[in-house]
Amino acid sequence: MSKPLILISNDDGINADGLHLLVELMKQLGEVVVVAPDSPQSGMGHAITIGNTLRLSETHIFKDVKAYQCSGTPADCVKIAKGFALKDRRPDLVVSGINHGSNTSISVIYSGTMSAALEGAIEDIPSIGFSVCDYSLEADFSHIKAHVLKIAAQVLKTGLPKGVALNVNFPAKQNDPIKGIKICRQTRAKWQEEFDRRIDPAGRQYFWLSGSFVNQDKGEDIDEWAIAHNYTSVVPVSFDLTAHHAIAILNKEWEI
Amino acid sequence: MSKPLILISNDDGINADGLHLLVELMKQLGEVVVVAPDSPQSGMGHAITIGNTLRLSETHIFKDVKAYQCSGTPADCVKIAKGFALKDRRPDLVVSGINHGSNTSISVIYSGTMSAALEGAIEDIPSIGFSVCDYSLEADFSHIKAHVLKIAAQVLKTGLPKGVALNVNFPAKQNDPIKGIKICRQTRAKWQEEFDRRIDPAGRQYFWLSGSFVNQDKGEDIDEWAIAHNYTSVVPVSFDLTAHHAIAILNKEWEI
Repeated sequence: MSKPLILISNDDGINADGLHLLVELMKQLGEVVVVAPDSPQSGMGHAITIGNTLRLSETHIFKDVKAYQCSGTPADCVKIAKGFALKDRRPDLVVSGINHGSNTSISVIYSGTMSAALEGAIEDIPSIGFSVCDYSLEADFSHIKAHVLKIAAQVLKTGLPKGVALNVNFPAKQNDPIKGIKICRQTRAKWQEEFDRRIDPAGRQYFWLSGSFVNQDKGEDIDEWAIAHNYTSVVPVSFDLTAHHAIAILNKEWEI
Repeated sequence: MSKPLILISNDDGINADGLHLLVELMKQLGEVVVVAPDSPQSGMGHAITIGNTLRLSETHIFKDVKAYQCSGTPADCVKIAKGFALKDRRPDLVVSGINHGSNTSISVIYSGTMSAALEGAIEDIPSIGFSVCDYSLEADFSHIKAHVLKIAAQVLKTGLPKGVALNVNFPAKQNDPIKGIKICRQTRAKWQEEFDRRIDPAGRQYFWLSGSFVNQDKGEDIDEWAIAHNYTSVVPVSFDLTAHHAIAILNKEWEI
C-alpha cells in the first residue's frame, strides 16, 4: 500500500519554525510535498493573486522533501500545488501551519493558515490548519507534537464530512501538559481595532493597526474556553457562508 | 429625525464607476461617508494589513460627500473608518461595491467587497455587499439602480439578523428588466484553477492564475440559479464558519 500524499503550506513563510516542525511530523505519516509562501503572509485571509503574476521555484531547504516557494498567498500556494507543482497527483491530506499565533474565534476569517486548509476542503481533500496560541517566532512547540500527529492520523483514517476543514489551535506551553482535545464551535468574539496614528519624516500621517480581543461569549463549548483551560481546540469550519436560518426571516419580513 | 449615516467602501478602488454610482444612490437615503482603497483590491478576501503601515487621506472627488482613500484592503477601510475617520459616529448601514464582477457562490470567500460588508456585520451594523455579474469596468449599471435602493432601504427599515450580512448580486444587463429579487443560499460550486506558465525575458518561469467556474449544484434556491434566470440574488452570510452539524459527527467518530 502506498504512503498517503500530504501537501503542506502555511502563512508564516517557508522559513518558519512551525512549518519545519510540521514537515518533520508529517514525514512520519506519509510522503510530503511543501508549497509555501516565500515571505510571511499573516493576515492575508483568503486573498488570491489576480491581476498580478505568480512566481514558483523549487527549494532544497528540506533536503529529503520536495518543496517549492511561491510569491503568492497561502491560498495561491494550494492552488498552484494542485494546478502545477503536484501535476496530476491528488493529496490525501492538506495541512497548513503550524501558525505562530492564535487562529481561534473570529481570527479564522483573517487567517492565511486557514485559507490554505479551506482551499483543500473546496477540492474535497481532508484538510487541517494548525496554530499555536503563542505569537513568538521562537515559541516552544514541544508540547503539541503528539496532538498534531494524533489529529492528522485520525483525519487520514476517517476523513472529514464533505465541505468541512478543521481549525486546530493549541494552547501556549504551560507547566502542565495539554489536558486533551475538545471539538468546539467558533467563539463569538471580535477584535476591537485600535489605530496608532503617527507622522512620517515628511509630515504625512500613517497608521499602525492593532487591536484587543473582546470576548463576550460565555459558552463552554467554544474554542476560547478550550484554550483558556489548556485543551487543544478543534473547530470544524465550512466555506458555505450562508446564514441558513436567516433565509426564512428575510422571506417573511421583506416586501419584495 | 436625523438622516441615517451610511458608510461606503468597495474593492475596485476609489475611482471605480460602481462606487460612484453607489454614492449617488445612497445620498438619496442618508448622509454618506466613503472610505475606499486607493487602488484596486480585487481578490483580497478578508486580508488585513498587519506588519505594515496604513495611509489614509481625505479626497474631494465626490464634492459634497466626505471621502477618504486608504492604502489598505477593503477590510482595513471599514476598520479605519470605525477606528479613526468616523471618530465616534456609528454608521446605521455599511454598503460595499458596487463590484464590477460576480461574487456569487464560492467567490464570496475571495471577495474584498464582501469582506468590507462582513466587517460591518462583526460590529452589529446592518451591512450589504453589492456586485454586478459583469466584469467590464464600463459595465452598464442602469438596470440595477431601483434594486440597490430597494434593498438598502429595506435593510435600513428592518435591520438584519444578528451576525448576518447580505451578499447581493445583480445579473448583467439583459434586454428584459430584472424579474425580481430572490433570497438564496450560496451555490455549492468551485473555481477550477488553471495556470498559464510563461517565461520572462531573464528565462525564469512565472504564472498567471485563471480558472473556470464549475457548478454541479442543481438547486433552484441558489444564487447562481437566480442570476441565470435574470433575478437579483440575496444571500444572507455569516462570519461564524463553524460547521455545526460536523461537531456531533467528530465527537462520535474520533477516538480522543
